Amino acid sequence: MLDICLLGTGGMLPLPYRALTSLMVRYNGSNILIDCGEGTQNQIRLQGWSFKPIDVICITHFHADHISGLPGLLLTMGNAERTEPLTMIGPKGLEKVVNSLRIIAPDLPFDIKFIELEEAYKELNICGLRLQAFKVNHKVTCYGYSLILDRAGKFDVNRAKALGLPVQYWGMLQKGESVTYEGKEYNSSQVMGASRKGLKVTYCTDTRPMDIIIKQAEDADLFICEGMYGEDDKLENAKENKHMTMMEAAGLAMKANPKELWLTHYSPATARPQEFEDKIREIFPRTVMSKDRRTIELKFED
Amino acid sequence: MLDICLLGTGGMLPLPYRALTSLMVRYNGSNILIDCGEGTQNQIRLQGWSFKPIDVICITHFHADHISGLPGLLLTMGNAERTEPLTMIGPKGLEKVVNSLRIIAPDLPFDIKFIELEEAYKELNICGLRLQAFKVNHKVTCYGYSLILDRAGKFDVNRAKALGLPVQYWGMLQKGESVTYEGKEYNSSQVMGASRKGLKVTYCTDTRPMDIIIKQAEDADLFICEGMYGEDDKLENAKENKHMTMMEAAGLAMKANPKELWLTHYSPATARPQEFEDKIREIFPRTVMSKDRRTIELKFED
Repeated sequence: MLDICLLGTGGMLPLPYRALTSLMVRYNGSNILIDCGEGTQNQIRLQGWSFKPIDVICITHFHADHISGLPGLLLTMGNAERTEPLTMIGPKGLEKVVNSLRIIAPDLPFDIKFIELEEAYKELNICGLRLQAFKVNHKVTCYGYSLILDRAGKFDVNRAKALGLPVQYWGMLQKGESVTYEGKEYNSSQVMGASRKGLKVTYCTDTRPMDIIIKQAEDADLFICEGMYGEDDKLENAKENKHMTMMEAAGLAMKANPKELWLTHYSPATARPQEFEDKIREIFPRTVMSKDRRTIELKFED
Repeated sequence: MLDICLLGTGGMLPLPYRALTSLMVRYNGSNILIDCGEGTQNQIRLQGWSFKPIDVICITHFHADHISGLPGLLLTMGNAERTEPLTMIGPKGLEKVVNSLRIIAPDLPFDIKFIELEEAYKELNICGLRLQAFKVNHKVTCYGYSLILDRAGKFDVNRAKALGLPVQYWGMLQKGESVTYEGKEYNSSQVMGASRKGLKVTYCTDTRPMDIIIKQAEDADLFICEGMYGEDDKLENAKENKHMTMMEAAGLAMKANPKELWLTHYSPATARPQEFEDKIREIFPRTVMSKDRRTIELKFED
């Protein structure tokens, strides 16, 4: 199960009633945070989720609305008595930016391990998940992220029995390990069916539309995407500032076919994103005009 | 008139229902901000006050809860189309700290002029006010600030008439200027009475009690002081972390005799500072257990 909370839905600057866009995913005791603007720690607190298990923080890019809350969050994680190392993932220059911000948070009781992205695409294994980082098209280097929880095939009891392998070895095969028994080697493919559909969340803000985004969001369980502007006449604005309109985001979703599209990163000038809901759902019916702290538990099918 | 808003009342870390301590003073079209933790810009917005006229930002010290909101605020001031230079005042090292934080706010449409404090006491003239910075006793270099609006004496019409000076020159004398008329020099002391009581606000957080604080808050119209802890058994804690208890703050007020003491900078563990009100008012009856965005308009007497 992936436990998802879109902590905030604002872009550019924090508003009293709309926090800056960031996402928290909980899986198997680990919390993964994507982006951390000013106020993100308050949203985590409002949600009642914990600071201590934040094992990974991914940053899309170094504009203040996506990272200005970091020094405060790091201090709060320290106050929550975290001592295990934290992994940070982001564009090239991440370590320099974070250390520069840490002039006001120099003493932390945990180490930070930095992974700087340089390729257009990179897959990493974090916290038992696959993280796919993909470069998008903003004014500065910016990445989108997909988090994927794979699901193994079904264990076939009859095949395991037919192998004549004692039951105490079955669990190892189920975990994908190999087993040697009475001089003979057994591997998991002998007892496991084809891998089943897992879970996928794709998060993408601050970019013009791109094919890689469609590819990433393809058949995702959840596609979280910026919808900076809702008005038709803001397209030029979006192009100039390298953002996306809600219509463009819905257009990507139409091609990628995720189970749900959650719009986020609204312009501060957009007081009521809901006004555009009908129009956007004509393009992609399963669109949600997210509000702060929208949550979902993604579960395996069946 | 001084228009005062204590934007937040929290210490250490922001809470959803208690912002970090900072003060805004409005005078004669200028806004002066003291401290800027994460979330301060939201408090200014909630209060409905403006970003553009912030002419001076004073920082008490470089702990994150007093400065982490700065890069976001600077960007928001830029978005509010400020182009006039901003003056920043704070301990030695201010320029380095601010420029380090500005790695995520490099492009601003206004210049920043830095005034770094090195002395134990310094008086500056800003926005038509006297600003007195005084070094206090915290774990890192920290300053308190008093803002003083002086008030000239009364203009004496009879003395002006007796001088035989035409009425069009009176205004200059009232402003403290000198006038030459028919070869003879006149100065303002010839027509103005003794200067009258002005207005004074003293702001002091993150320190152990000190005599200089009493001196600064003496007969102030408003003394805003940290009261980190309310419990008697937290005194050792306060000493160790170089903070003040509410009782200590009230003890300073008892000696300084301000019109009002506003407590602030409560520990995140103190859910209801009001619980300690009766006890604190036994020490200094005119104590206010401030809540976020407490305001007052300070006006000249009579």
